[in-house]
This record gives sequence, structure tokens and C-alpha cells, in this order.
Amino acid sequence: MATDDVELRDTELVQPAADSVGFVTRQLATLFQPPSPLRLAGGGELGPVTVAYETYGELSPQKDNAIFVCHALTGDAHVAGWHSANDRKPGWWEEFVGPGKGLDTNRYFVICANCLGGCQGTTGPQSINPTSGERYGLNFPFMTVGDVVEVHAALVRHLGIEKLLSVVGGSLGGMQVLEWAARFPEMINSAVCMASAAKLTAQGIAFNAVGRRAIITDPNFHGGQYYDKAVGPNVGLALARMVAHITYLSDVSIEQKFSRRLQGADKLSYDMMHQIEFQVESYLHYQGKRFIERFDANSYLYLTRAMDYFDLAETYGSTEQALSRTNARFLVTSYTSDWLFPTAQSKELVRALIAARRHVTFIELASEYGHDAFLIEFEWLEKLVRPFLEQTLHSVRKG
Amino acid sequence: MATDDVELRDTELVQPAADSVGFVTRQLATLFQPPSPLRLAGGGELGPVTVAYETYGELSPQKDNAIFVCHALTGDAHVAGWHSANDRKPGWWEEFVGPGKGLDTNRYFVICANCLGGCQGTTGPQSINPTSGERYGLNFPFMTVGDVVEVHAALVRHLGIEKLLSVVGGSLGGMQVLEWAARFPEMINSAVCMASAAKLTAQGIAFNAVGRRAIITDPNFHGGQYYDKAVGPNVGLALARMVAHITYLSDVSIEQKFSRRLQGADKLSYDMMHQIEFQVESYLHYQGKRFIERFDANSYLYLTRAMDYFDLAETYGSTEQALSRTNARFLVTSYTSDWLFPTAQSKELVRALIAARRHVTFIELASEYGHDAFLIEFEWLEKLVRPFLEQTLHSVRKG
Repeated sequence: MATDDVELRDTELVQPAADSVGFVTRQLATLFQPPSPLRLAGGGELGPVTVAYETYGELSPQKDNAIFVCHALTGDAHVAGWHSANDRKPGWWEEFVGPGKGLDTNRYFVICANCLGGCQGTTGPQSINPTSGERYGLNFPFMTVGDVVEVHAALVRHLGIEKLLSVVGGSLGGMQVLEWAARFPEMINSAVCMASAAKLTAQGIAFNAVGRRAIITDPNFHGGQYYDKAVGPNVGLALARMVAHITYLSDVSIEQKFSRRLQGADKLSYDMMHQIEFQVESYLHYQGKRFIERFDANSYLYLTRAMDYFDLAETYGSTEQALSRTNARFLVTSYTSDWLFPTAQSKELVRALIAARRHVTFIELASEYGHDAFLIEFEWLEKLVRPFLEQTLHSVRKG
Repeated sequence: MATDDVELRDTELVQPAADSVGFVTRQLATLFQPPSPLRLAGGGELGPVTVAYETYGELSPQKDNAIFVCHALTGDAHVAGWHSANDRKPGWWEEFVGPGKGLDTNRYFVICANCLGGCQGTTGPQSINPTSGERYGLNFPFMTVGDVVEVHAALVRHLGIEKLLSVVGGSLGGMQVLEWAARFPEMINSAVCMASAAKLTAQGIAFNAVGRRAIITDPNFHGGQYYDKAVGPNVGLALARMVAHITYLSDVSIEQKFSRRLQGADKLSYDMMHQIEFQVESYLHYQGKRFIERFDANSYLYLTRAMDYFDLAETYGSTEQALSRTNARFLVTSYTSDWLFPTAQSKELVRALIAARRHVTFIELASEYGHDAFLIEFEWLEKLVRPFLEQTLHSVRKG
């Protein structure tokens, strides 16, 4: 999302800043080996499951300083740092994760893993189905946010960690945070849930439905088996991204950024063949174009559906019952101009936590950046998250 | 938009209610005959231009009681009444236009004409280009809201009316109302501008851009020359409608109407092949399907582009300068939950009118129906519009 804006020129070689985690390497773990496959909420099975992940900082000898970051819909495990000097941009949360930053890698061991069903190394629809020897496509089993978290918890255990200091995420990542709390209540000491909700609104489902429709009706979709074709459903995937991108911005931020300014011309063309007239059109087309270079259409279908399905109250009886399962301390943040996950939904979480007599800190941060604010507004977030994590670590070590 | 919800069963024959204008007939006028073609803002020419329109009520002997209704993006001239006993639904503003209603056809002569560039009988992209003998498609000349109003003013004069009692419209219709005030300041005694603005926001342009992109990338679009093909760009047009429809509803109305209720099942399917799981998805698909039965994709391209281009301040120097050209009395309404044309934009109009020392009444109506509220919320609207029109007629007749 937001990191698409920050980019190096082609010829520049990266010299990571002193407060960057620097050069990092993606790692792979193979979990759910036979005879213990992952059993999915929808009834399917998967195994083995490859998980791609990155870690930053050092795990303490007591293994009590690990923070798991849950990435959002189109994010990935590459949270911070650079893969090579030729990278054009750093990890998606570079400004928040690093030495002395919000998630301080001098103090904490930060882990992030690609979601199940994604397209950045963790098993997903483009992985080879061991049964058929072909890529899964839509034969990939149906999966939920619960299944995503199940895989991540297995990774955490695989890394020898019994209990996380914190689990942190925004948007779909925030949904995973809530699922962690309900599903693995003993595995977390705290939870940071940003710009998220216990369930998606009808409006959110509607926007996801339009995106999926654009992909599925693309003639190059081929029922999801497009991997061996010259062209995949790029047009549909780009359209899905364009419409979703609008929902990540606020009315104010999109107006301030573009208003009615024209693209590459000082007057209107009065020409129907001229499809990109306004800067905002050019920007959306660019977002669509960039997205198809890095994302898989089937993954978009699976992950948006998992997002639609997520409903903490439906799964656990009520939001209160779900969140009362853990004794973790909670930090909940929302953003004034976020209309995709409005503040009212964060307040519902807070009310449920209070009703469950759990420790919760809530703040609605003033921002004009809409839903993307959790990827952009770091100053206040740092001021909240740093003491929250310090206190959590303090109480963990105090025992 | 809203009228899609009210529908008769297949076998029922219409018996118009006593407060309906009853059975009505579409009429055609041929204007801009050679050697006086319509000269368009973009430099093109059109002539002759066919205009499809309807009228309700009687024109007074003094010809001082005519009200021109400007329809919105996907509306048409069929504002009220029924075309035949086999009609499945009445005109789109049936509840607001008729004997004793908001626009009282016992007192006023109400006119509405299909927009230039539309697809309901007025000359548009699917009309035959007299030069080539083929349908225009994208060879239809570029057109603006100003051009639409130019044609409607010609129709009004053609009907023998020199000055309208009022010009009334919402959304794109409201933009036409504002254009009437600036372009034909002497032809209107009053103006009612609902849920509209002096220009579209960047967010509004963005949503239009996604819709157009969906149409243009549909393989059945054929560069706009799909009229002789078995299938047109129905998939793209339906997608455009789906995304636009979300913007016509408010977050509250869509949540109340659908929440997370399932479509035709009592539990989630956990099946990726199951594309329509939630009621809101079914509703959007239905909206898309219904839309392609009645609307032309090229018209959608032209009219959304005209909407993007509309900018009163850009055309007339400033909104104040534009609106100060007329002495018409104004009624401006906005709706609390309308996020496509938010109240702030109506207030800008009001400020400009006040600065221009013009008569203006403004009200922000409380409604949960979002942008569609102007098609749904009649009780308060009637209470405002009826006295506003009475006073206008009174002051006209007083001289």
C-alpha cells in the first residue's frame, strides 16, 4: 500500500540507514509434515506446509521478547530492511520496525510470516499440489483467518517460542491478532490491533465482492488455472486493486493528493479516447499495474474471502467470549478518517474487552490518511507501542 | 437506483393510484436541424438532435408554471406514471411527482428529457451517425454537462416556454441545475439542487475511472463498436454498476439492509466456487444484471466523463461568478449520510450564493440512505419543495 510511494531510482544502490535492520534474508520452514497435516476450518487438509518468514533482532535467552507481526491483505513477511543492494524499496513497515523504532529490534525479536494462501513463499494456490503435481489454483482448500493463524502459531513453536511478548497487526493483520487471542490465548502476553475489527462490514464485503468479480470474469482467469498461460487475469486483478485502493484512502487524503489536477496536460482533452485525464486516474492505473507484478489473483480471491468470513462472535459465541479467553493486555488503535474499518468497530472490541475485564488501552488517532494510516502515521503509534511493549515485558519478567 | 426495489409481479396489471400521473407517453422532438447544429463544448457538432421527453400536468395559459426535472446519471425522462398496464414499475420519481405530491402536477407542468449522450431515445452513442450510416459508438462527439443543458434549453424553447418556474435535480441532475443557472440565467425563476456539487471530488472521479476501466477492458467492448455483436461489454458494465452502487448507499444503510446475512443458506459454504455467499453480494450482482438490461456502456462512458469534467468554477471563473449570473431563488439540500456528494459541497454552493447576495434556502436532511436519499426520502423534501415552488410562482405572478 503506502510503501509504493517510496522508491529508489534504478541506478541507486541501497545503503541501509543506521536505524534500519539492514540486509535481511527470507527463511523457509516446512511444517505440518505427514502424518500431521494442517486440518482447515473448511474441512480440507494441507501438508506439508511451507512457511516463508523473516526475523529481526535477537531472541533473548529466556525467549520472552518475541513479537509476531501479522501482515495485511497484500503485505508479506518482508516487514523491514532490504533483501539486497539492488532492492528498490525496503520492507513495508520499515519506518516502524528497526533499531530504536516502534518495534525496537535492539530489544525485541520480531517475526513475520507470509500468510497461508498468499503468494510470497508460504503455501498457497500457486503452490504445487502434491497429489496432482500441478499448481492448486482453485483446488487449493478453502481457508480462514483461523487457518492462517494456525500456521503462524506452528511456526512460532517451531522457532522454540512458547509465548509471544506480543502479536501486532493492522487491518486483516488486526483480524489475525484477534484470532490469536481467541485461538491461542496462552501463547500471547499482549496484542496490538490496529485499524481492524471483529468482522468486516457489509460495505467491506461488497467492495471485496466487486474485486473478486473483476478477477473471475477476466477471460484470462481460466477457472483459476492460468499459471501456465502466457497471460493471467491481470486486467481483473488490476481492477480489483484499483477499487480496493480507493477504500484505503480517505476522502480528504485523496482530495489533497490529487484534487482535480490533470495528468501531463494543462487543459482537459475533450476526447473520449483519452482515458487518463486526471492525476487520480493515473495514480489508480499505476497502483493496478504495480499490483499485478507482485500479487497472484487466486491468492487475492482466497484472502479476501477469508477476510469476509472472519467473524469473531460467530466463531466464539460473542466478541466478549472470544477475547475473554486470553489474559493478554490489549492496545487497540483506530484512525479518524478510516472508513473501511471505522472507529466504531474498534470501540466494539474495547467494549468487549472491558466487559471481559481485560486490560485494554484504546486510542483513536487523528489522521487524514484513511485506512492506510496504520502504514503511514508512526509518530503517535511509536509513543503508544513502545511503553506498551516495555510494560508487557516488565510484567512478564516480573512474573 | 432506488426504484429497482419496487416492482410488480409478472402477472399483475397496473392500475395507477389516484395520486399518480397515470399512463404517460414518451414524446420526441427533433432539434438543431441543419443548418443550425448543436455546437459542443469539445468542438464537435451534432444535428439534428432527437430529444425524448415526457410531460405531466398542464402548461398554464401564461406558460409560467413549467418545471424542468434534470435526471441523474442512469435516470431517464420517465419520471412518473406508467407507460402501459404491463409495466413492472413506474417512473423513477413516482413518489415525488404527481397530483398533490412534491412536484404537484395539478399545479405545475413538469417536463423531463433524456440526457444527450444517454440511451433512452435522446441522441447518444448508439444513435446512427448520419455521416457514416453506422452507430456512433466512440465516434460520438465529446460532450459536457453544459451540452446536455444546451439541448434541454432548446427543448424548453421548442415547447414555447420562455422561462421555467423551476429547474430541479439531484446528483448529476443537480449539476445540470447549476449549469442551467449559469448558462441560461434568464430562463429560470428558481432552482432546486439536491445531493449535488459544483464539481466532483477526486474520490468521485476515482470511482468513475474504475467503472470506465471495467467497461473498456471488457473483451466484448470492441472499441465501442459492439452494437452489431452478439454480446456487448455486459460484464464490464455490470461491474461498473456494482462499484457505483456501493457509493450510492451509506455505510449504515448497507449494514442495516444486509449486515453479514447469508444468501439462500443457513451456514457458510467454505467453498471458493461459491461466489455469492452473502446477501450483499447477491444484491450487487442483481444490480449489475438489471443495469445491463437497460443501459448502454458507451452512454455510461460519456455521461460519467461529463460528470468528471463538470466544474462550475473552472468554466465561469468561480462558483460565485457562475451563480451570480441568475436572479433565481435557490433551494439546496444535502443528506447526512451521503458520502459521494457530501454536505460540505452543498455548503460551498450556499456560501457562493450568499456571497453573490442571492436568495438561498439550504437544509441538510437527516437520512441513512446515503446518496440515494434524494430518491427515497420524500416526506421532508415535499415540505420544503412545495412552499418553495408556491412562493416562486407567487412572486412570478406578482411580477
